[in-house]
Amino acid sequence: MTEAHQASEKFTWPVRVYWEDTDAGGIVFYANYLKFFERARTEWLRSRGIEQRALVESTGGMFVVSEAQIRYLKPARLDDELIVTAWPLEAGRASMTIQQQVFLKTPTGTHLLCEGTIRAGWVNAVTHKPARIPPTVLEALK
Amino acid sequence: MTEAHQASEKFTWPVRVYWEDTDAGGIVFYANYLKFFERARTEWLRSRGIEQRALVESTGGMFVVSEAQIRYLKPARLDDELIVTAWPLEAGRASMTIQQQVFLKTPTGTHLLCEGTIRAGWVNAVTHKPARIPPTVLEALK
Amino acid sequence: MTEAHQASEKFTWPVRVYWEDTDAGGIVFYANYLKFFERARTEWLRSRGIEQRALVESTGGMFVVSEAQIRYLKPARLDDELIVTAWPLEAGRASMTIQQQVFLKTPTGTHLLCEGTIRAGWVNAVTHKPARIPPTVLEALK
Amino acid sequence: MTEAHQASEKFTWPVRVYWEDTDAGGIVFYANYLKFFERARTEWLRSRGIEQRALVESTGGMFVVSEAQIRYLKPARLDDELIVTAWPLEAGRASMTIQQQVFLKTPTGTHLLCEGTIRAGWVNAVTHKPARIPPTVLEALK
Repeated sequence: MTEAHQASEKFTWPVRVYWEDTDAGGIVFYANYLKFFERARTEWLRSRGIEQRALVESTGGMFVVSEAQIRYLKPARLDDELIVTAWPLEAGRASMTIQQQVFLKTPTGTHLLCEGTIRAGWVNAVTHKPARIPPTVLEALK
Repeated sequence: MTEAHQASEKFTWPVRVYWEDTDAGGIVFYANYLKFFERARTEWLRSRGIEQRALVESTGGMFVVSEAQIRYLKPARLDDELIVTAWPLEAGRASMTIQQQVFLKTPTGTHLLCEGTIRAGWVNAVTHKPARIPPTVLEALK
Repeated sequence: MTEAHQASEKFTWPVRVYWEDTDAGGIVFYANYLKFFERARTEWLRSRGIEQRALVESTGGMFVVSEAQIRYLKPARLDDELIVTAWPLEAGRASMTIQQQVFLKTPTGTHLLCEGTIRAGWVNAVTHKPARIPPTVLEALK
Repeated sequence: MTEAHQASEKFTWPVRVYWEDTDAGGIVFYANYLKFFERARTEWLRSRGIEQRALVESTGGMFVVSEAQIRYLKPARLDDELIVTAWPLEAGRASMTIQQQVFLKTPTGTHLLCEGTIRAGWVNAVTHKPARIPPTVLEALK
């Protein structure tokens, strides 16, 4: 997959860093990048017509993260403007893998702060047992 | 109500301040004291034999906060050992009001950092409509 | 102060509800409305030209919340679109009081979910001792 | 390394699941396991005599996470009692790698819910540039 091709598939979502995101080290707390990742995945799904609360109600299922890998390169700070990306690496019948990045916006360009890979599986929302992704969802993710 | 009498009714719960609780100002983020309050209320209920997840499953109802008032006197910092209190000011048929405080533990004594009053109403867990607190819960709270 | 007058002074900020904001009761966790309030206050300050990280660095001071009062009327849920408001009730030399509300956006209008009053004092960022709000900040808040 | 040997080196820390930790899926939000990991690492350091706030003040440095890998096997729920472990896989001059697990405590035993590997580097607390771990810290970690 070429860079150009990747770029064309990247969904981007702006995130601003607030006091709630930072810690006493003066930087964004490491767990909170997973919140930013989740917001971008949710907005990527929404851009494909998938609203997750409606999905639980209509299908009885939901995505649950099964694996996460994150590399923290540079810290984000209070008031920073971030761009969070999401694009699918692969989608199977029961799970999908999403590549995600966090960039800092500056007047001179963007700088990569953090990147990760998230694997999410489809489960029954009550029993939490793995299940097949509903066809309508699979179709929307193509 | 005398101090001595109050003290005898106060439920206390230890809380340690971690990185997750602090913000870039070097102190505990103001919303997080409401987490500490909630932990102490939950443990106070547990000390009375009330487990909230089991309660939702058995009664279909739960407590939801309807009002909160908080005064922040001094900030808590990373690694601080706190004592959080909870004691009932009043309990009606559909709601209760809890007084809560956060103290800093130091070698020479405890210092009040924060105090608040929380009003919680009983609601149906699905419709979120107000309802009467189940008799078994009311009995446990006496 | 008339409603019309109030409305003209209200700063509004959109907030979307994500998984991170909700709890096992299916609704936004009560402490998280204070995060939404803080985001709206920060954006209101930014709209007046005040960036808080830069402010700490240039003045050595910051705002710290000293009092919060919140009334929770109806719960917000996953995927909800909220409008958060902020407007100054009063501003003194060392503190200010902000009125804040959270509205749910629906196709047929907006509904008040939560409202509160936040008092914030100016403190030295290192010693946390109360201090006078710098003139440039006071001027921007007028 | 045998299981028995590993067990002898494992630091364990109890964590209770509160409302703040859960999401509308009825389970602990995936980012919050990183909070549990961090609490266990902090308590493991404290058990070795290392208090992080004091460390920043005395050395001007701190640990910052550079990599995290997490596998989520089964979800934790409200009121669950968890055991979080931390043990060092390797410690270099500028970073260390910690293995961590989250177990559910039940009357019949413990069940693995989540496991991960955290790499943390030592940085200057102001510039965030990588630096060598101070000898006193290295000694305490042995």
